Amino acid sequence: MNNTAIQSVTYENGKLYILDQTKLPTIIDFLEITAIEDTWNAIKQLKVRGAPAIGIAAAYGLLLGLKEAPEDSFSSFYTVFKEKSDYLAGSRPTAVNLFWALRRMNERAQSESSKPVTLIKAALEDEAHKIREEDEQVCRSIGEHAITLLEDGMGILTHCNAGGIATAKYGTALAPLYLAKERGWDMKVFADETRPLLQGARLTAWELMQAGIDVTLIADNMAAIVMQKGWIQAVIVGCDRVAANGDAANKIGTYGVALLAKAHNIPFYVAAPISTIDLATKTGAEIPIEERDAAEITAGLGKQTAPEGVKVYNPAFDVTPHHLITAIITEKGILRGNFKEQLPKLFQSSLTSSS
Amino acid sequence: MNNTAIQSVTYENGKLYILDQTKLPTIIDFLEITAIEDTWNAIKQLKVRGAPAIGIAAAYGLLLGLKEAPEDSFSSFYTVFKEKSDYLAGSRPTAVNLFWALRRMNERAQSESSKPVTLIKAALEDEAHKIREEDEQVCRSIGEHAITLLEDGMGILTHCNAGGIATAKYGTALAPLYLAKERGWDMKVFADETRPLLQGARLTAWELMQAGIDVTLIADNMAAIVMQKGWIQAVIVGCDRVAANGDAANKIGTYGVALLAKAHNIPFYVAAPISTIDLATKTGAEIPIEERDAAEITAGLGKQTAPEGVKVYNPAFDVTPHHLITAIITEKGILRGNFKEQLPKLFQSSLTSSS
Repeated sequence: MNNTAIQSVTYENGKLYILDQTKLPTIIDFLEITAIEDTWNAIKQLKVRGAPAIGIAAAYGLLLGLKEAPEDSFSSFYTVFKEKSDYLAGSRPTAVNLFWALRRMNERAQSESSKPVTLIKAALEDEAHKIREEDEQVCRSIGEHAITLLEDGMGILTHCNAGGIATAKYGTALAPLYLAKERGWDMKVFADETRPLLQGARLTAWELMQAGIDVTLIADNMAAIVMQKGWIQAVIVGCDRVAANGDAANKIGTYGVALLAKAHNIPFYVAAPISTIDLATKTGAEIPIEERDAAEITAGLGKQTAPEGVKVYNPAFDVTPHHLITAIITEKGILRGNFKEQLPKLFQSSLTSSS
Repeated sequence: MNNTAIQSVTYENGKLYILDQTKLPTIIDFLEITAIEDTWNAIKQLKVRGAPAIGIAAAYGLLLGLKEAPEDSFSSFYTVFKEKSDYLAGSRPTAVNLFWALRRMNERAQSESSKPVTLIKAALEDEAHKIREEDEQVCRSIGEHAITLLEDGMGILTHCNAGGIATAKYGTALAPLYLAKERGWDMKVFADETRPLLQGARLTAWELMQAGIDVTLIADNMAAIVMQKGWIQAVIVGCDRVAANGDAANKIGTYGVALLAKAHNIPFYVAAPISTIDLATKTGAEIPIEERDAAEITAGLGKQTAPEGVKVYNPAFDVTPHHLITAIITEKGILRGNFKEQLPKLFQSSLTSSS
């Protein structure tokens, strides 16, 4: 498992393996799953998280549910297929990638409907692997583009977890760090702990350590001092949505990191799979900012750490304006300068390969 | 207790009252202390914290230890005085204000040595009250100067706790907010929670709520978004040490807040009692930055939230360069512009009244 990114969702010999992310960072437990019901639970209970990883788990989980499906006719097979697919779709009704993956499995089943059911089952296993492999390839491509911006020995700061365990492998923002490791480079990574939910401490620090990458955990409010000390040569973060003008929504605190990077003349990179680029959203001002439960801040860490009844502001995301972003790194290449002009071109040449 | 700052250390009718800060914010407990041993424990166990508050507690605690001291001669009284004073000095050997207060009590005892011991005891009670009152006056003066920079209805962001409970009353950075409340102003305060030890969540939010001041708790990484939203018109923080050129050391994260304030054209004020100004330190580069235990970040809040053995960088302070500081607010007035020229003048006119 060393020296490369962990794969949090894999399928081998009819068994699904899922890294239980709810037990991290103290317990490393790969669940061995043979039943669709256990897949449903793993998704429901957030044991698998991250949009791409959820989609992959759903595709493989569906295979488990189809093992015993009748093979005498497509129509009797397809009745079970629909039932199992609908069942999995109910595990996490807000996860877009879950539906996307199940829809893709459905399309494959339909397109193979004239074949014997045994071959359809094999085709569906092929499709599930493809979903996983394509995501891995997107992440690896982002990493390959991103690494051209880096050099051996650099200090890199990241925020939250845009990491391998949320995807098939490599992650987005962390992808170039895994590729650097493969090349034998020694990067010094600083991971913001990322309050309130501590994805940086619990997930990013953990997965980088697993791969043998040098990572130092800091509290969010220490990002400025490590930049002041000259320890950071680049900031790389993931994103949830990129607007048509290049404004990028990402985990709360990203905007502040971008301002600090600018003040220290450090390049600020956003790793963005094309699937996160939303040309229908004109600017970041149109991106709604979800506010979350006050208890995440007042009592999220095992005990109450703030006065009873205190007013809390707890936005889940913030928007980094495009002028603070040095480059947007996609699987199709690196965008700099006028994002508004460049982002649509990306779609013209790659509409079919994006999800 | 409403509508004004809490006094965390008071003395009345031979009894010392100390707000137990270790129980905040969930339990509000004023310890009633009648024995010097309990004072020693309260200081040792950090039930009273903040340099000025510790000094005041020590002065009052010494009174408790001297109640039964012999009154037949100064020399027999002074033997007990020295013994009790040395005892208290051992409660927290790194607390400079502890020694300063005990030294001041000693000087008063010496200067009254020709009087009957009953009068010396009365003089020492007077001296202890003076120590408390002078600190209250310093804080109030800082507040009176600072409030000239503010207006009714403003949004104010603060970091850590430079508050009333660390001092006799009012605090330093929070002083203008208490004075604003006395005037009936409605300030909207945003308190950074201040990782890793959460002084903002546990103390600042609590003491402002007690006084009926509108306070909203945020995670440190949310300071940027509340500025972006236009909710903040001024930042006020305390400080631990100001160098001769105006560079200011304060709780980790302060430097980042100063950069964010500058990026949003928000004035950044440092409240600094003259006792924190250190002309012997030429610039902030000479201020040593204490690094603290990794466990404060990895497991400080009740459970382990980071991988076993992860590398951590946990500086307790950072240094805000003078060019980011809009004004330094002291009890003698507001300094702007060339701090290097102005700071020494402050000392020429007020050397005796500073501690």
